[in-house]
Amino acid sequence: MHKDQWFSEISYFNSHMTGFKVKQLLHEEQSKYQNIKVLDTHSVGKLLLLDNKTMVSQADEFVYHEVVSHVPYMCKPEVENVLVIGGGDGGVVREYVKHSDITSIDLVEIDERVIEVSKKFFPECTSGLNDPRVNVHTTDGIEFIQSKKNHYDIIVIDSTDPEDFAAGLFTEKFYKNVYESLKDDGIMINQTENPFLDEYGIKKIYSNMKKAFPIVKSFYAPMLIYPGVYWTFGFSSKKYQPTNLVRSKILQMKNLERSLKWYNTDWHIGAFQLSNLHKRKIGL
Amino acid sequence: MHKDQWFSEISYFNSHMTGFKVKQLLHEEQSKYQNIKVLDTHSVGKLLLLDNKTMVSQADEFVYHEVVSHVPYMCKPEVENVLVIGGGDGGVVREYVKHSDITSIDLVEIDERVIEVSKKFFPECTSGLNDPRVNVHTTDGIEFIQSKKNHYDIIVIDSTDPEDFAAGLFTEKFYKNVYESLKDDGIMINQTENPFLDEYGIKKIYSNMKKAFPIVKSFYAPMLIYPGVYWTFGFSSKKYQPTNLVRSKILQMKNLERSLKWYNTDWHIGAFQLSNLHKRKIGL
Repeated sequence: MHKDQWFSEISYFNSHMTGFKVKQLLHEEQSKYQNIKVLDTHSVGKLLLLDNKTMVSQADEFVYHEVVSHVPYMCKPEVENVLVIGGGDGGVVREYVKHSDITSIDLVEIDERVIEVSKKFFPECTSGLNDPRVNVHTTDGIEFIQSKKNHYDIIVIDSTDPEDFAAGLFTEKFYKNVYESLKDDGIMINQTENPFLDEYGIKKIYSNMKKAFPIVKSFYAPMLIYPGVYWTFGFSSKKYQPTNLVRSKILQMKNLERSLKWYNTDWHIGAFQLSNLHKRKIGL
Repeated sequence: MHKDQWFSEISYFNSHMTGFKVKQLLHEEQSKYQNIKVLDTHSVGKLLLLDNKTMVSQADEFVYHEVVSHVPYMCKPEVENVLVIGGGDGGVVREYVKHSDITSIDLVEIDERVIEVSKKFFPECTSGLNDPRVNVHTTDGIEFIQSKKNHYDIIVIDSTDPEDFAAGLFTEKFYKNVYESLKDDGIMINQTENPFLDEYGIKKIYSNMKKAFPIVKSFYAPMLIYPGVYWTFGFSSKKYQPTNLVRSKILQMKNLERSLKWYNTDWHIGAFQLSNLHKRKIGL
């Protein structure tokens, strides 16, 4: 890949394309699990690719990382133990370490090379991994959660698309295991794809979540580098509703919001007000 | 353009690309103003291009058309006269004719060939143009509004990007003319581009709106076919706020919502709850 070539991700049954003009290929390797590339681009800065799918860019990484962390945090009065499955770029962990009441953050990333490459090329994402509350486990998330019962306040499934070794992160069985790993008022957050270019069957994903959790809601945020941009996220909960923010946390969050690039509590409430299309596609 | 070729729109200083795999080129012509093409695509169905920029597709046209019509309608107690500038595809007019209290809808489209091509290839969009309350004017919107003072309840600027003959639709002078054409409680709605790929200077557009209107707000909706998808819209108003919905209209809208593909009043309120990035980019 040379200067001023294009990197294009082709999706939705080989019919939709998103392209980024490349300044430079910064890194490429084949790990045990996947092809890992880092590009420098004209439109979104540095861009991490796994098996030629866009994962993280400097232009929009904060959207994903801020919303999957602060949304559940604001809905649950006590948050001590957090688990992030996937997310080897470290961005989700970076957001959680901003909350001093959190005592333990487990990051479970199957591919340790994703972590190492991110440390080198996306240090702004991995900065939280050195926090003493963080434990990094380079193992399979599906196996890892089976060893933890009634332990976590929040579990974030920061996965790739539902195929290959990530497919198991979208099954009824997995969501039931996540349920068991959560405390009896715990919350699971996961990415649930684009509803316009619904290649993987969003309705089935939500149906699986509903088989495991009593409260299943959805919200949306734009991920500029992902196919179709308009991105949906699941909020699966044993007790708390996503738009009942914890009053005692709001003042603290107003202070933190000044340094955030995307999240604020008004946006949080708005993101759960779904369009007719969004509701129809997820079947809720 | 042949079967299984790609149509790609390249944007943001020639650095970002969105591509659609083509089934068939259905139509192409050069009008007095621009190149007009209609493609049939695999991902978004029929797709209208003006000067090779995506304008309307079957997969997402309802988003734009429903939001720019029903959002201002729900904020203003009395809506009799509506003006749509641009929008020769007829989709905005189709939404307004659903409201029986509206007595007059002017559509001002500079290029009559856009209207004719839309009638042939997008009849689901142009269906409202035969309504007896609708008057179509094939003339320049910038000149047209100077002939109307204190007349309209709502004016929708359904424009292309701020360049070539559409550049005049983003100036302080034009917004002041729109202000003059509106009744003393009127509302202007306009598309204001993508804030991640800010090629045209969104802050300047909002600055111009603020020089003409006392109340200027912004909201967002996804336009799958537009570069960057996350699309911003301006709500400029002489009197009414965008999240104070008219109580007496809500029951009527609940009935209409059942047949809409995107808009509902909960979504409407949520779409004005802006992220930090959105607020920063528009300078509000």
